[in-house]
Amino acid sequence: MNIALIGATGAVGREMLRELEKSPFIQGDTELSLFASERSQGQFLRFRERSLKVRNVTELSGDRFDFVLMSAGSHVSCEYAPILAAHGAIVIDNSSAFRMDEDVPLVVPEVNGSVLAGLTSGIIANPNCSTIQLVVSLCPLQRLAGLETVILSTYQSVSGSGQKGIDELSRQLHSDVRTPDVYPQPIAFNVISHIGALTEGGPCEEELKIIRESRKILNLPDLSVLVTTARVPVYHCHCESVVVQLQQAVDLAEVDRAFGSMPGLICHAPDLSVEELPSPYHCTERPEVFVSRLRLLWGEHRSRWLQYWNVADNLKKGAATNAVQIMEQVLRQRQL
Amino acid sequence: MNIALIGATGAVGREMLRELEKSPFIQGDTELSLFASERSQGQFLRFRERSLKVRNVTELSGDRFDFVLMSAGSHVSCEYAPILAAHGAIVIDNSSAFRMDEDVPLVVPEVNGSVLAGLTSGIIANPNCSTIQLVVSLCPLQRLAGLETVILSTYQSVSGSGQKGIDELSRQLHSDVRTPDVYPQPIAFNVISHIGALTEGGPCEEELKIIRESRKILNLPDLSVLVTTARVPVYHCHCESVVVQLQQAVDLAEVDRAFGSMPGLICHAPDLSVEELPSPYHCTERPEVFVSRLRLLWGEHRSRWLQYWNVADNLKKGAATNAVQIMEQVLRQRQL
Repeated sequence: MNIALIGATGAVGREMLRELEKSPFIQGDTELSLFASERSQGQFLRFRERSLKVRNVTELSGDRFDFVLMSAGSHVSCEYAPILAAHGAIVIDNSSAFRMDEDVPLVVPEVNGSVLAGLTSGIIANPNCSTIQLVVSLCPLQRLAGLETVILSTYQSVSGSGQKGIDELSRQLHSDVRTPDVYPQPIAFNVISHIGALTEGGPCEEELKIIRESRKILNLPDLSVLVTTARVPVYHCHCESVVVQLQQAVDLAEVDRAFGSMPGLICHAPDLSVEELPSPYHCTERPEVFVSRLRLLWGEHRSRWLQYWNVADNLKKGAATNAVQIMEQVLRQRQL
Repeated sequence: MNIALIGATGAVGREMLRELEKSPFIQGDTELSLFASERSQGQFLRFRERSLKVRNVTELSGDRFDFVLMSAGSHVSCEYAPILAAHGAIVIDNSSAFRMDEDVPLVVPEVNGSVLAGLTSGIIANPNCSTIQLVVSLCPLQRLAGLETVILSTYQSVSGSGQKGIDELSRQLHSDVRTPDVYPQPIAFNVISHIGALTEGGPCEEELKIIRESRKILNLPDLSVLVTTARVPVYHCHCESVVVQLQQAVDLAEVDRAFGSMPGLICHAPDLSVEELPSPYHCTERPEVFVSRLRLLWGEHRSRWLQYWNVADNLKKGAATNAVQIMEQVLRQRQL
């Protein structure tokens, strides 16, 4: 097997490398090629016992890969993904470039992995980080009682902007000069009420991604999604405060069972101590989606209104873990 | 006029002193007495050109005041507020001790200041910080189109826990040891998904305060309020991501006019640059409530679903400013 990782030196790329290290599908004879921008070429990155040299992405031409994992921005994806796919690769692309293309599957394996069946080459899009953790929690609720309206507010970490977001928060925390560069305002000691540019009608780009991608992954093209995305001064993990109006009333025991049977989701017991409640502090470096603080409309035993708190590491399940899981799912289906 | 400030050395008490300094009702012959716990007695605090000595709260007995501003915790309020009121004072209490008492007005002057008419003595409760900024924004919407369901997620700063919250964040940011003391988990680089103890059925104490107090202030005892309160690593200002399901569909121009005519509320134009959007960075030390990012359910021109972002300085409008405004409103009504 012949795998390429493009954008290997970025925040997501490095996590992809770590996920590949753990994958049982990657064996000693698997060839792994690393690519990045000109700035990072010539660096060496560890992969298990090997030391791999990072090559310039412009050297890609002509190579034939079984799988390509890409996380180098939309412009790189637009330039190289179609060529690599035409050469027979399955390209798993972490950028937003192809996510809403009708012909491109947008996949969270636990939710809609079945769309991968029979795929032999082509582009597969890895969804937006905050979308992935949301749909993992919505999927069992949809099956349980149907989704009417989804309302969420996000608390997103700076690693969602890659290494440059991490560097900006760190710099501002260690200096009295808080001139913003990555973000439109200082992020240290602040909450920024939007992510990405504001679009016509009010939503910001991140909110549109969540609305459109959730509808596509859940195959609910008319789902009402009301979302506000905000950036908080946290390095890792996105949190989501979720309210779901279901089509049918449920009680908490039913919801608990539904979450409990969802792969990749850990639902915390209501008697968990507050010291242990899922948070960025506890969930960083973890591959799962963590759901807690389950409750119905206050005072009701059965209700159509469900509330919960959702945390996941945006570089793990929100990006690298999901991408590698897509690759593993394709390989698993081939073995069948 | 004879005014006492109890809890004068706390984070809210110091802001109350600054608000009193600016009040046109406080003149040269106004007597101002400062009280605090034993730990702080003997300190001197500046008030305009004067330097005032802080006395032990246990020395209060027998004194007669026109107004007492209290922010020294529920136990101090429970002990002293009824006595001071019985001696003829109007006690404006910032603790949660009396807020839900049927006989005690719970007041945000711009919203329900009329309940103060004719009051000559007794206890008036100052609402919870996150409730105040919420109801200032809900009031004009209620008048415009009626409230069906209110759904909010908060991003609350550590100064909501007083000086000890500020000290804890600062200590954790400047040390690798992040042992929590005030909060159940480290707050630096973290988001904590609840504020106050978790109660039966799921909500935490802060969420119950918002539900109950909003219903009382707005005089809507059955209003559906779904709220999640979270603590973020920010020193000052609470942010709220608000979704309101109105009884009647509205368009954004109507909402804009409704917000525009609300005293104490600043509604930002949709064409405001992202650098200037209201945030803790911009709103700290400001006495108003800031509303921005107004939008309807995506794609609709008229809708019953309205979303917006709400920011206010929790020590200002969320506590000290509102308390002093209550006093001023009482005095203004006496002049009529």
